[in-house]
Amino acid sequence: MEKFIEVATLEAIEYIYEIEKVLYKAKSEYQEIMVFKNPYFGNMLVLDGAVQITERDEFFYHEMMAHVLAHAHPIPKNVVVIGGGDGGTVREVAKHKCIEKIYFIEIDPEVIRVSKEFFPDVASAVDDPRVEIKNMDGAEFIKGARNIDLVLIDSTDPIGFAKSLFAEEFFRNIENALSPDGMCVIQSESMLLHPGIVLDVQSVLRKVFPVVDLFTAPIATYPGNWWTFSVGSKRLDPREMRRKFDINTKYYSDEIHDYSFLPKGLYRKFLDGSFRP
Amino acid sequence: MEKFIEVATLEAIEYIYEIEKVLYKAKSEYQEIMVFKNPYFGNMLVLDGAVQITERDEFFYHEMMAHVLAHAHPIPKNVVVIGGGDGGTVREVAKHKCIEKIYFIEIDPEVIRVSKEFFPDVASAVDDPRVEIKNMDGAEFIKGARNIDLVLIDSTDPIGFAKSLFAEEFFRNIENALSPDGMCVIQSESMLLHPGIVLDVQSVLRKVFPVVDLFTAPIATYPGNWWTFSVGSKRLDPREMRRKFDINTKYYSDEIHDYSFLPKGLYRKFLDGSFRP
Repeated sequence: MEKFIEVATLEAIEYIYEIEKVLYKAKSEYQEIMVFKNPYFGNMLVLDGAVQITERDEFFYHEMMAHVLAHAHPIPKNVVVIGGGDGGTVREVAKHKCIEKIYFIEIDPEVIRVSKEFFPDVASAVDDPRVEIKNMDGAEFIKGARNIDLVLIDSTDPIGFAKSLFAEEFFRNIENALSPDGMCVIQSESMLLHPGIVLDVQSVLRKVFPVVDLFTAPIATYPGNWWTFSVGSKRLDPREMRRKFDINTKYYSDEIHDYSFLPKGLYRKFLDGSFRP
Repeated sequence: MEKFIEVATLEAIEYIYEIEKVLYKAKSEYQEIMVFKNPYFGNMLVLDGAVQITERDEFFYHEMMAHVLAHAHPIPKNVVVIGGGDGGTVREVAKHKCIEKIYFIEIDPEVIRVSKEFFPDVASAVDDPRVEIKNMDGAEFIKGARNIDLVLIDSTDPIGFAKSLFAEEFFRNIENALSPDGMCVIQSESMLLHPGIVLDVQSVLRKVFPVVDLFTAPIATYPGNWWTFSVGSKRLDPREMRRKFDINTKYYSDEIHDYSFLPKGLYRKFLDGSFRP
């Protein structure tokens, strides 16, 4: 049977997936988009050779990307989702009735189109009336944005055209776009296989935000699995929940909110280099 | 460059490692033993095609295998380690001065010998005077054991000759061998890729022990990574620490003791089937 191989770390480890059937494969203006069916994970979306989501486990990533900050904020109304063309983060954000506006900034319209076709459940809220899709560079959009409560950066890896989403200037513009209680989160790769990237993202955030933190989620199909989400906040501690948990989820809950943040001692040891996975 | 491929789940996902150099490869009486060097993980021990340890990340597994129960018990003196021929669990157990006797029951003497040669740091406590090595089936040894405080089952996957270590009769014999405050722990595979095995082990433990629990550790080189350890206890709650944490570790600590146990709500949902990764 045909196989798909993802290089995970410096060629030292790779993940191979059995391809039951290739459902889609084409080059968009920005990247190669592939969808294939795997016997265990179901449909899988691959962009430029990196697995983005699988039907089976996408909920871990999307719930954590959306709900941690949505519960740390006292009442989010305006949310920006950058990237995440599959629509999974938007679907989770849309579960919050208090949220009035979701700016969905995905540079590549082909990812949204393909996801609607092959991941209808994931893309199910893309047509919600609160969602405004803009096919443009998130770094450009954020320059003109104001009064945003949450910015959720659901980017691909920090290489290629997504690189601008990991730069200091980008976070300065986010800080400028955020309301006083505003916060942002960015996926920052694996604690185990990319600790250097995690530290880089944390250090850029620290230059801009007074409050920086780190939470994680277990995702079998992201190489290294112990996946990190880096938070920058203008003043609120994201470990604290400020809203009642009353939405339907598979993984996230009030106890998972606590559980997901790296224990403080381990976090300190990670930042100062005395814990190095 | 040559590659090593590990089949992780039903052929649906495999892990590939670059082999910089094969350091050892031979069949023992029980299994095929291979040691190779990988550019990222360092020396790696592979038994019958399954990665057992890597120099880089072995500490996660061995510290968690030893220290969670060693701190949940008020004062462990007699400890049995079943399997774990690399010596990593024994090394961690030996850090506890209160422990007077370590029965190290590894069926395959070749694994111990090869580990001493290629993983000297991991096997560093194998010759500690408190350690008594017995090259026999752990299920046989435990039948005649008495007054044991902790049984740590550091087995290979529940297939082949290790299968007897996952059977109800084995745990009944452990229960019989344990002192009144006694506890046992067994590695029970990945929460994400083998939830069926985790549930099977939990259900066997529940037939024998009044207190059963589950903790996890992040291990990049065990497929599925969110690795589980299932605990059976005669009366003590393993979530509670009963001794001061005052040994040298890289990952385990008093906060990691708490952090490692599955949050109770998620654990309940996992057991009743409403959370299925």
